[in-house]
Amino acid sequence: MKKKLFFTGLIVMFALSAIGHFGHWDMTAQFIISAIAIVFVAGFLGKATESVAHYAGQRLGGFLNATFGNAAELIIAIFLVKEGLFDMVKASITGSIIGNLLLVLGLSFLLGGLKYKVQTYNIKLAEHNGSLMILAIVALFVPAVFIKMEKFSIDEDKLLSIAVACILIACYLLWLVFSMITHKDMLADEVMNADHGEEPSWSKLTSIIMLVVATVMVAFVSEWLVHTLDTFTHKFGLSELFVGAFVIAIVGNAAEHSAAIMLAMKNKIGAAVEIAIGSSLQIALFVAPVLILVSILFNHNSFMDIVFTPIELTAIGVSVFIAKSVNKDGSTNWYEGVLLLMLYAILGFAFYLV
Amino acid sequence: MKKKLFFTGLIVMFALSAIGHFGHWDMTAQFIISAIAIVFVAGFLGKATESVAHYAGQRLGGFLNATFGNAAELIIAIFLVKEGLFDMVKASITGSIIGNLLLVLGLSFLLGGLKYKVQTYNIKLAEHNGSLMILAIVALFVPAVFIKMEKFSIDEDKLLSIAVACILIACYLLWLVFSMITHKDMLADEVMNADHGEEPSWSKLTSIIMLVVATVMVAFVSEWLVHTLDTFTHKFGLSELFVGAFVIAIVGNAAEHSAAIMLAMKNKIGAAVEIAIGSSLQIALFVAPVLILVSILFNHNSFMDIVFTPIELTAIGVSVFIAKSVNKDGSTNWYEGVLLLMLYAILGFAFYLV
Amino acid sequence: MKKKLFFTGLIVMFALSAIGHFGHWDMTAQFIISAIAIVFVAGFLGKATESVAHYAGQRLGGFLNATFGNAAELIIAIFLVKEGLFDMVKASITGSIIGNLLLVLGLSFLLGGLKYKVQTYNIKLAEHNGSLMILAIVALFVPAVFIKMEKFSIDEDKLLSIAVACILIACYLLWLVFSMITHKDMLADEVMNADHGEEPSWSKLTSIIMLVVATVMVAFVSEWLVHTLDTFTHKFGLSELFVGAFVIAIVGNAAEHSAAIMLAMKNKIGAAVEIAIGSSLQIALFVAPVLILVSILFNHNSFMDIVFTPIELTAIGVSVFIAKSVNKDGSTNWYEGVLLLMLYAILGFAFYLV
Repeated sequence: MKKKLFFTGLIVMFALSAIGHFGHWDMTAQFIISAIAIVFVAGFLGKATESVAHYAGQRLGGFLNATFGNAAELIIAIFLVKEGLFDMVKASITGSIIGNLLLVLGLSFLLGGLKYKVQTYNIKLAEHNGSLMILAIVALFVPAVFIKMEKFSIDEDKLLSIAVACILIACYLLWLVFSMITHKDMLADEVMNADHGEEPSWSKLTSIIMLVVATVMVAFVSEWLVHTLDTFTHKFGLSELFVGAFVIAIVGNAAEHSAAIMLAMKNKIGAAVEIAIGSSLQIALFVAPVLILVSILFNHNSFMDIVFTPIELTAIGVSVFIAKSVNKDGSTNWYEGVLLLMLYAILGFAFYLV
Repeated sequence: MKKKLFFTGLIVMFALSAIGHFGHWDMTAQFIISAIAIVFVAGFLGKATESVAHYAGQRLGGFLNATFGNAAELIIAIFLVKEGLFDMVKASITGSIIGNLLLVLGLSFLLGGLKYKVQTYNIKLAEHNGSLMILAIVALFVPAVFIKMEKFSIDEDKLLSIAVACILIACYLLWLVFSMITHKDMLADEVMNADHGEEPSWSKLTSIIMLVVATVMVAFVSEWLVHTLDTFTHKFGLSELFVGAFVIAIVGNAAEHSAAIMLAMKNKIGAAVEIAIGSSLQIALFVAPVLILVSILFNHNSFMDIVFTPIELTAIGVSVFIAKSVNKDGSTNWYEGVLLLMLYAILGFAFYLV
Repeated sequence: MKKKLFFTGLIVMFALSAIGHFGHWDMTAQFIISAIAIVFVAGFLGKATESVAHYAGQRLGGFLNATFGNAAELIIAIFLVKEGLFDMVKASITGSIIGNLLLVLGLSFLLGGLKYKVQTYNIKLAEHNGSLMILAIVALFVPAVFIKMEKFSIDEDKLLSIAVACILIACYLLWLVFSMITHKDMLADEVMNADHGEEPSWSKLTSIIMLVVATVMVAFVSEWLVHTLDTFTHKFGLSELFVGAFVIAIVGNAAEHSAAIMLAMKNKIGAAVEIAIGSSLQIALFVAPVLILVSILFNHNSFMDIVFTPIELTAIGVSVFIAKSVNKDGSTNWYEGVLLLMLYAILGFAFYLV
């Protein structure tokens, strides 16, 4: 009964927001409708992820969720790169990374921690995630220092950007080999095996189909919602940097957000961490470098280099450090969530004032 | 017998240094008397803390000691803020943080470690302390980068300073909730419970009263001693930065210093760490933000923003990193004390040359 | 039989490369001969180290190897300092540190990890190494910030350089007291004791003599090889910074490289880590400060201060951070090797472009 109501709401809101978008309705109406729709589609994605996680284990489920979530972002960003909007792309990459590390992880730890005193997950995974996060920030930091300090020419800038992008993609692909093939068992979540309490609603195949469908719906509604934001930013006088790094990043990651938080509240904190950190690692090690390579293939006159601004690097750097510090023991509580959210608030306020 | 002698010395030296101060004696005489008096009152505070710690557990005892110690500093700093001496206040905040993290912790580990081969304390506490220290340094670092890089206006500077100050105070209050209420047991020191060897001299109530009395005495003698320093700095040609960050910080924290070291030498390293790290966290997360808010309430033409100088941020940042690295395993030895003291020596020498 | 062939090759190649060097043969011929010779002498050093490690334990064996390896470097660097080539000395110090932390450690973890799924070593050692690495980077970073930011005079620069150099040497000597005397057992590798499978070829005394002989041979061949590089750098148009930091550092550390990798492939990862990290700590905490003091004793008009360039500090800093992150759990696998090597590739490419 409750389920039927949910799916009716989901289809109605999705259809309405499609009609609003293509019918060029009033922007305020479009915004409200899409905002409600995103709650439904994100909830749907959460259900599908959880069902897949039941069959595939928390980690693979988390990985699938992160990948489907970022696929939508990657497609939107490719269109922005094609139009040469490099600064907005970098701002939204920054926003996605800090949004996942601070907002998603923070809310998961806080809400999960209010329900369960301590939540634990595989410490080996926490350690490897930490090392990968360090590599990601270092790989963004090193070119920025060299290119600025040594006054590299455009060609040297391009060469270094291509080299670092290729190295990061290689790291990401080898990480998949390591975590999904050679050391799969070492990183698995023991908690998972003991956790068969809840029976999933769908079969294995249906779950996977539902995950794909839900992701596509999230991608569409996110795009429609982002489309309405432009008008709003002008009304409220927000800077493009703030909109790119906070508004677009929050809305664009709604799927990961709701899925991770729902899992945390069901004491599956391992899957929540996998979604949040996995997603930010995927953006830093895969999405960002792919966009750099794409920009070089597409544009003949200009390209997107790997040099982020000092405030973007600062935001990513401090987020990685605090997330690494909070995560390193593989155990979480509500106060660790507070710490992450407080830093997100500081960064949000600072970006807002820029 | 030994006890009686000590209390006679305490009262005589306290009285003498009060008479010297209010009677405007020769500055050199005042300095020598106050310096001897501070040894007695600090020793008294150490005894009182230890006695309270016996009843309250090492952690609460440490927290009380840190709070009483910093109350004196806060009061002195408020007077400095009122007079608009913002640079000296920031220098003494810097000095208190690095003094606690490097000098107090370093001496505790070294002297404790020379007596006991390895000393251990609750690893969960070490981890949470580490995350809080990272938040503190990040919260000081982020505004400095944004305000300098983006050339914020005075109003934006003020807004960001207020916002970050409020967030830090909120973090500190929630930390008290977490560590004293919701997760009290998780952070408790098991060592404590087994440690009833020494019978305390005072009852529970007397111990608390003694703690308050001792703190007040330390506050007075510290202030009298600080008062004599001005003359000395002119004689020896020391910079205000050096005096603020090293001399004032060392004298002003004499209480924590002696209490922590005495506890370490009695193998109560958990309480020593709680005093040293708790005190520096309290300064970064509570005292500093309160002073910023106070400066905005008091002054109409100017205010103390949250932007520390690059060398202050460097000093705090490197101290946090090495203290975090040394503390993260919840076990200490003499060499870890050496590392902390050596960094303190490097920073002291660098500040001296400025 | 196999052994006899090896020693014949060793002596022939060593003799040939000596004759080539002193006979002023064609530079290309000298380069090829020395490059082959270095493979043999490094292999010899590896065998000798392993034999000594059998008698002395993995840690002491690793320490001896690191010391003998760096003795050669120290001697070469003293000649460079005497000629006033301070920038090349700093570049080669930088290169040695990152070469040990990223290349040697990375290859050890990767090749060891391809053979053994997980390799473990004493976690206490990993923690102390981490703290020492933090101290080393901090001690290089602090003077750079103070001297640049506060515009120190030449005299202040000299004083601070001497003070920091003396403090680092004191830290290093106390570390030897700690790790070899007072806490020897705590840092020992339990794995070692259980590992008597392979019988060594030489007696205890012969092993030590062989270690000394091998180190001397490596020092000579390294120098002859370095000597030929100058011609090559001009042919290939490489910058002095790149040659100093990468070519000289790789060739000059050939001994540690081969020894560490051979030990890793025999599952003695504890000794491999000790060689790589021990060697880089020795360079940062002992070789670099000694060279600063030597430069001040030798030169009357100029001296080598402790201020490294921003890109050198960046390279050392990021290497320390990722090495610390990868090492902190005392367990290694092939992917951790990949991470270290990838960062080495990024830094190598960036230095190449400078």
